[in-house]
Amino acid sequence: MKDELLRELIIRNDHKIIYLILDGLGGHPMPGGDKTELETAHTPNFDQLAREGICGLLDPVSPGITPGSGPGHLALFGYDPQEYIIGRGVLSALGVEFHLTEKDVAARLNFCTIDANGVVVDRRAGRIPTELNKKLCEKIRQQVKLNGDVEFFIETESEHRAVLILRGEGLGGNINDTDPQVVGEKPIEPRGEDPASEKTAALVRSFLEQVREILKDESPANFVLARGFAKYDPLPTMEERFGLKSIAIAQYPMYRGLARLVGMHVPPKPETYEAMWEQLKAFYDQFDFFFIHFKKTDSTGEDGAFDKKVKVIEEIDAWAGRLRELNPAVIVVTGDHSTPSLLKSHSWHPVPAILWSPYARPDAVTTFGERECARGYLNRMETRHLIVLALANALRLKKFGA
Amino acid sequence: MKDELLRELIIRNDHKIIYLILDGLGGHPMPGGDKTELETAHTPNFDQLAREGICGLLDPVSPGITPGSGPGHLALFGYDPQEYIIGRGVLSALGVEFHLTEKDVAARLNFCTIDANGVVVDRRAGRIPTELNKKLCEKIRQQVKLNGDVEFFIETESEHRAVLILRGEGLGGNINDTDPQVVGEKPIEPRGEDPASEKTAALVRSFLEQVREILKDESPANFVLARGFAKYDPLPTMEERFGLKSIAIAQYPMYRGLARLVGMHVPPKPETYEAMWEQLKAFYDQFDFFFIHFKKTDSTGEDGAFDKKVKVIEEIDAWAGRLRELNPAVIVVTGDHSTPSLLKSHSWHPVPAILWSPYARPDAVTTFGERECARGYLNRMETRHLIVLALANALRLKKFGA
Repeated sequence: MKDELLRELIIRNDHKIIYLILDGLGGHPMPGGDKTELETAHTPNFDQLAREGICGLLDPVSPGITPGSGPGHLALFGYDPQEYIIGRGVLSALGVEFHLTEKDVAARLNFCTIDANGVVVDRRAGRIPTELNKKLCEKIRQQVKLNGDVEFFIETESEHRAVLILRGEGLGGNINDTDPQVVGEKPIEPRGEDPASEKTAALVRSFLEQVREILKDESPANFVLARGFAKYDPLPTMEERFGLKSIAIAQYPMYRGLARLVGMHVPPKPETYEAMWEQLKAFYDQFDFFFIHFKKTDSTGEDGAFDKKVKVIEEIDAWAGRLRELNPAVIVVTGDHSTPSLLKSHSWHPVPAILWSPYARPDAVTTFGERECARGYLNRMETRHLIVLALANALRLKKFGA
Repeated sequence: MKDELLRELIIRNDHKIIYLILDGLGGHPMPGGDKTELETAHTPNFDQLAREGICGLLDPVSPGITPGSGPGHLALFGYDPQEYIIGRGVLSALGVEFHLTEKDVAARLNFCTIDANGVVVDRRAGRIPTELNKKLCEKIRQQVKLNGDVEFFIETESEHRAVLILRGEGLGGNINDTDPQVVGEKPIEPRGEDPASEKTAALVRSFLEQVREILKDESPANFVLARGFAKYDPLPTMEERFGLKSIAIAQYPMYRGLARLVGMHVPPKPETYEAMWEQLKAFYDQFDFFFIHFKKTDSTGEDGAFDKKVKVIEEIDAWAGRLRELNPAVIVVTGDHSTPSLLKSHSWHPVPAILWSPYARPDAVTTFGERECARGYLNRMETRHLIVLALANALRLKKFGA
């Protein structure tokens, strides 16, 4: 539904909505097997939610599209990922929990190796250790001076990866990558596509010249390549769009950053699953929407570790058994995308989902799994619509029209 | 499909399309129960249509949105309810079968009680009897004089509710509600957002001043509050959009009015179900599309009367057994929205639907119910697309492209 129409329908009440997100939840049978990771897992709590609620298969973007973490989560939060595009530089900044402001342009930096003629010979500088990365970032931080009133920040991600942020008035992010993508060529000069971006590109050129000088005696990391320049444009918040005071209970920086993007409160990192539960209980009365993020379903899928992914799903199912003690109005269980162990990567497969509520009108699904979900009332739909159904089931929407 | 493309495909023939609309058809199990009202009802005729035709679940607006009667019916008639927005005043005028023209601005009026300082003390004037409402409307009708060439009409709805219509050249409906929504405050002055609306608002101010004087000695209904000002903009008709000469067989004013909105012929009110059948037969040769509306599935749902709703569904099923005698090309059985007895109100739940036709390619559904419909070929879709499927099954659409 169109935002301006939906806004008119929002009711505020104290009915709570819990989104339990198992990153990369959807899977695939392995060769010779017949069941996915989720279908293999023993999940009595999810099965009960599936039996009592409604199920379906969600497309985070649209059928056939494999989403990154950004689009996958935006869709869960109710933001059309084809409309709200988050630049890679901004995602990288979120990934190191850098707090962006609307004056910021961010880019990914890779430490690289260039030869005496300035030609790139290793685009990742032999994947230098993170500790060396930190040391080089500190050196750059100390020595680079930019003209004008523009500040810069350089933050280590890991190995050869870092993030550059420029902060100032009137900056623009439409700047080409300097990474030539192949070895044997020189880095590309950064240029801006519009006046604000060209002003920014000039600062980047100055930054790069100084870095080349500062790192000239380092080895192997004697220069940097920049990619994914992006201006940070704050998104409308979930409270503005849906009337939901929202909080993220998540351990990993990227997801904590994505939650901040849509205005969620992000309390300190919970170190354990038990700490996540304690955090949920502690903040339960103060918020309406709870985004609870579990990472390991994705990382085990990326490792191709089918059995481990099964086990992780079972652990999270056990964790989720307590959720109903809190008496929420709505519990959603789903993922931001699929990560089949078979593919060892994110994939385009639609993501199984449960929406549990006393008003969900139970369907014929009795266990939580991809095949079963295909028979459910949620049917197959784009993930971004799910938030509207969650609002409806929490009785947080008025009637549309008389 | 886009209107301008669809229009090119329209064929006119004598194949009839019947839409049997059970208002608020969709339901929900009661606590402790497992079946909805429809799943509980014994419906041999609907079951036969479901077995031979195709079934699905329809979202009148979009998933999670609870539609009013206006959006719900527009969607059935093939009009996107997010595009064709009908103002509340216009709906109220339809509800008293007032015949609007394109010169009209309509608003809801509530008789109210104000104290000596003009402060609202009862927004509904103690829900005065309809008879008193009629008497007061007549008094206002006789005594109020508006400047210029603008006519006004005031029509009793029921209890404290009435409708005001202003008719003249160059009027506008972007006027705020005068209802302060709470007692203890004075009514709000009506103001227009644009010149046409401000011209209209000035007339409304004059109207309200005179009404205040006319009703000053009445008790408890000594003033009126106005809400939902809306200009009436005629919609393209179903004949223009789909090549369908259409007729409404409906007992209740609101639905008769909604049918008029899209250019349907609306014969005199049929007093009984039998009279509806006679009307259908009498007009059968002259029209292409038959909108047949049954109200009681909604009103029993609104009353929370699960068993009564079941019985009403069974009565309509029996009525529908004769439809095939008429040899229609397409029979649709569905609702404009769900009204679960559990919620005692319209709801967001998708609406079960049958599309029967000799060319529908039967699916696996064998009985008419929400859970069964989830397995059908219609799948889950927005209601507004159904008319195109009905046209196709009536062989009223040419091939698109060569």
